[in-house]
Amino acid sequence: MSPQLDFWVSIGSTYTYLAVMRAEEAAATAGVALRWRIFSVRQIMIEQNNIAFRGKPVKAAYMWRDIARRAAMRGLAPKLPAPYPLEEFDLANQVAVLGLERGWGRDYIRAAYRLWFEKGMRAGEGANLAAALGGLGLDPETVTAEARGDAVRAAYLAATGEAKRIGVFGAPSFVAGDEVFWGDDRLEDALSWARYGAVRAG
Amino acid sequence: MSPQLDFWVSIGSTYTYLAVMRAEEAAATAGVALRWRIFSVRQIMIEQNNIAFRGKPVKAAYMWRDIARRAAMRGLAPKLPAPYPLEEFDLANQVAVLGLERGWGRDYIRAAYRLWFEKGMRAGEGANLAAALGGLGLDPETVTAEARGDAVRAAYLAATGEAKRIGVFGAPSFVAGDEVFWGDDRLEDALSWARYGAVRAG
Repeated sequence: MSPQLDFWVSIGSTYTYLAVMRAEEAAATAGVALRWRIFSVRQIMIEQNNIAFRGKPVKAAYMWRDIARRAAMRGLAPKLPAPYPLEEFDLANQVAVLGLERGWGRDYIRAAYRLWFEKGMRAGEGANLAAALGGLGLDPETVTAEARGDAVRAAYLAATGEAKRIGVFGAPSFVAGDEVFWGDDRLEDALSWARYGAVRAG
Repeated sequence: MSPQLDFWVSIGSTYTYLAVMRAEEAAATAGVALRWRIFSVRQIMIEQNNIAFRGKPVKAAYMWRDIARRAAMRGLAPKLPAPYPLEEFDLANQVAVLGLERGWGRDYIRAAYRLWFEKGMRAGEGANLAAALGGLGLDPETVTAEARGDAVRAAYLAATGEAKRIGVFGAPSFVAGDEVFWGDDRLEDALSWARYGAVRAG
């Protein structure tokens, strides 16, 4: 069986753009099976008094610049800063929960991020949902209605509770066994841990 | 002339342990001249309401684990968690300011970090200063007295003001031209920018 790595995604996180655009390919190259999980990083960060960028203009400006430089390195061309923060992040994530159950979740998440970061269309809002879901041949109204339902919402909250229990406090995160790795820039460390039980150099 | 990179160090920062143990060698390999600068990251973070770990036990525990994994990858063997936070960080940094003027600053900084992270001796306190400075053939009392003086303190405050003006908000940071790179994990990006004016893949 392939080594496995859990990829904890929360739409609304900025650096997660970099991760969703490359994680699947990087994992495949490493021979690691990637399991995408959706959670509310905001709920955990509020509980832990962990404020990423609100009221921190210097740090926020740096974040956009850092993402721009790393995106360029990877051949991506986002229009930054993207609209931030999102208001409808919970709906964006609940659609992703449903999509991962149905098999179109990864494509939806990448599409939602591309539209948000490359076209300025906020994830979770009507235009983004219409384009991302429509592009996958899905009916946005039907999908969105189901994503708002109790079953999906319960799964999203349960996953958030699980993330918190295992020590996930930020997004994106990668979890291999008991080891948490936080940040797009720890994907290589996480893949190494999944394969070898240690972080090995490049 | 070699491309130049400024390395903004603030003793007291935890991830700076990883950076000071490798930055000089990495820069030399890349053909980049590294200029070490000392500042008070704490002063800037307080001003910017940027709280790294205080009151955030989950994030703090992660930080130590992340440092442990990356230290092991680089053949370092710290005893973690190291005593944290430091109380005498200003004195530790003022000694570094003096040392960089006199030519022994880099060796002192690395020694102070090794003693702190590998022997549990807090940087800026008597035992650390005695061992770090004594190991360089310096008299700890004479050096410490001078480091406490107005001239060194003024240089430290001026550098902190400069760091703030150019957008440094955390430690360690690397600055190439107008570009700020934050974190030990951005050293490669910073070296790439110093050489090519862009972040290139590994």
